[in-house]
Amino acid sequence: MTDPFEQRLSARTRGVTSSAIREILKVASRPDITSFAGGLPAPEYFPIDAMRSAADRVLSNYGRQALQYAATEGVGELRELIAATVSAQEPAAPVTAENVILTTGSQQALDLVAKVLLDPGDLVVTEDPSYLGALQAFRLFQASYAPVAMDDEGVEPDALAAALARNPKFAYLLPTFQNPTGRTMGRERRETVARLVERHRVPLVEDDPYGAIYFERPAGPSLRSLAPDWTLALGTFSKTLAPGLRLGWVVGPAAWVARLAQVKQSADLHTSTLSQYVALEVLKSGALEPHLEVLRGVYRERCEAMLQALGEHFPAGSRWTVPTGGMFVWVELPSGVDVSPLLPKVVAEERVAYVPGAPFHPNGGGLNTMRLNFTHAPAEVVRDGVARLGRALTRALEAAPA
Amino acid sequence: MTDPFEQRLSARTRGVTSSAIREILKVASRPDITSFAGGLPAPEYFPIDAMRSAADRVLSNYGRQALQYAATEGVGELRELIAATVSAQEPAAPVTAENVILTTGSQQALDLVAKVLLDPGDLVVTEDPSYLGALQAFRLFQASYAPVAMDDEGVEPDALAAALARNPKFAYLLPTFQNPTGRTMGRERRETVARLVERHRVPLVEDDPYGAIYFERPAGPSLRSLAPDWTLALGTFSKTLAPGLRLGWVVGPAAWVARLAQVKQSADLHTSTLSQYVALEVLKSGALEPHLEVLRGVYRERCEAMLQALGEHFPAGSRWTVPTGGMFVWVELPSGVDVSPLLPKVVAEERVAYVPGAPFHPNGGGLNTMRLNFTHAPAEVVRDGVARLGRALTRALEAAPA
Repeated sequence: MTDPFEQRLSARTRGVTSSAIREILKVASRPDITSFAGGLPAPEYFPIDAMRSAADRVLSNYGRQALQYAATEGVGELRELIAATVSAQEPAAPVTAENVILTTGSQQALDLVAKVLLDPGDLVVTEDPSYLGALQAFRLFQASYAPVAMDDEGVEPDALAAALARNPKFAYLLPTFQNPTGRTMGRERRETVARLVERHRVPLVEDDPYGAIYFERPAGPSLRSLAPDWTLALGTFSKTLAPGLRLGWVVGPAAWVARLAQVKQSADLHTSTLSQYVALEVLKSGALEPHLEVLRGVYRERCEAMLQALGEHFPAGSRWTVPTGGMFVWVELPSGVDVSPLLPKVVAEERVAYVPGAPFHPNGGGLNTMRLNFTHAPAEVVRDGVARLGRALTRALEAAPA
Repeated sequence: MTDPFEQRLSARTRGVTSSAIREILKVASRPDITSFAGGLPAPEYFPIDAMRSAADRVLSNYGRQALQYAATEGVGELRELIAATVSAQEPAAPVTAENVILTTGSQQALDLVAKVLLDPGDLVVTEDPSYLGALQAFRLFQASYAPVAMDDEGVEPDALAAALARNPKFAYLLPTFQNPTGRTMGRERRETVARLVERHRVPLVEDDPYGAIYFERPAGPSLRSLAPDWTLALGTFSKTLAPGLRLGWVVGPAAWVARLAQVKQSADLHTSTLSQYVALEVLKSGALEPHLEVLRGVYRERCEAMLQALGEHFPAGSRWTVPTGGMFVWVELPSGVDVSPLLPKVVAEERVAYVPGAPFHPNGGGLNTMRLNFTHAPAEVVRDGVARLGRALTRALEAAPA
């Protein structure tokens, strides 16, 4: 007899199958595997001492507030601090606390945006490829996709204009150190994108988890600062402090933020008060910026190790992006290669993991692409793992029928 | 010109108006108000020292794990500990870790259940009245309701059978110290409900946030232990440790729990790793049970103060429940009184707040009812506040046209 729960699944859930990210995280957690698959920060650089002393001060000095229910929008002082920080960085588009909502990681912001805006079949404009977790969140609300082709600077303006003209519910873009490609829009491209969004009157969801993790200098101005009336900008402490806090935020027009708060209340009432106070205390201590300086150097070194090893060991005809920050390199193998069926073999024989690029393409394609994370392992491990992966791919290509 | 965001709202969001709970929390937060409106635990009894030393041990001993991304289902050791605890309390229906998922408060569990099961118009069976946060979460997924009349022991069996016969997606019940009424099903009623659910093959969502907060002795066996193949049982640390952790869990059939994990991944990837490790460390330290003993005594004293003051000061013809645990007393004023329009006046003149009972009724009714929380204020404050509230209500009744 059919399980009465399975019989009763909603239409949105019947379409859900096993999740690529979940499988990635499972592979990545085996200690004998060098995994370039996840998007994990380097745990040996977590600011553990700063967090421990912050937690101690929080619980010593205002434990009652830090452990109690809080407002759905977040702890007032943290909203104000985020608003002040954003306003200082983007003086052309200042905000106040009422433009800010704290979320349970920026993943929750994606879920809330989808919940607020999407009816079954509604169109969402994305980069092609785009962040898998966002695609899954939107797909659960039965989105359809208008993926926009990219060049080295992100979405191509003409293709974007054509997609925006199809009356989508919103556009979802990662202009800075994009996941999965590592690409970054320059200043001119950002201006062009902002004007297109305004002209077509389409709400923009700008996802920027990696902006603070630049190697040389910050990327161009945020899309939000160029189109403040049209943009919900998503930020997170997951890459700067620690993902275990599950702490992100959204900055945008107050009325739009208020809509997110309405549905967030049903989702989890509010984000962990303890996480919010611990992050606030770390920020107030001034420990974040020196920590970021360290991270930038470490991740840059690891990225360079990966790029060098790719050049030395990957099959002829392969191409890859050269990121200026963030966590990922995007590799395109010679066309005709499908990297998905190779994965189990490479994991078993070479103890190296990667993510096939195909699932990042909303409407298919990209069979010969893969995403490689460079932040989770030391440079020598990155170098050695890329070498093993390169050799395995070379062997597979040579063994393939011509 | 209409805001392009408002123009694009999903059908589910267009129905959302201002939220009763949000307004409650705002009123409750003003220090000059004695609020019986919220559902807040007593912050002066938070186990702050135990939490502080737990946080310190967690960050000293395994900070890297506690700050990193984690599995969507939760930290393995915490899932195992919850499974072992449930199995020890309910040996007739033992579970393992695969039957357990951690959630971002039990509010998230309500959202996940709705997301997995509800299409627009689908029927949900509830008590009448029921928990407002659940009704809002289900309504966001466009549920319709089959509310079931209650007696002093919870849902009336004949009325429940009739509702279950209407092929609902699930039934949502709070058998123990119910929110909002404080009522508790006895053993026989529980058996009857479990058999009805099985006979009608309807999944049951059993919400039990207050079970550990009994005054004299635990309530009867969980519905899950009586119908383990049919029940998702929701638990939380919000009332036993602290709501600020945003940490709840669901216990149920492994395949059902796996469906919740699938949609939780899109919702927030996973629940705060820091919160999970801190709770785990407190549990392992043995600090929870002595803390609960203290809470039970404190809340019992506050409840008794409320019940005594109700008898002394509330208008003739009023009735109320006599809870044996939990956080709420439910008051029914003489019929014909509508307590909602009285609220602003009572807050302004007497600085006392309550929640009108009407919004807890899924399909309307209950204009003359209110929910009073007794856990948040000391007994003398409860006594004084109920006296002021009773006098205000008595005056209002006398002033009303006959």
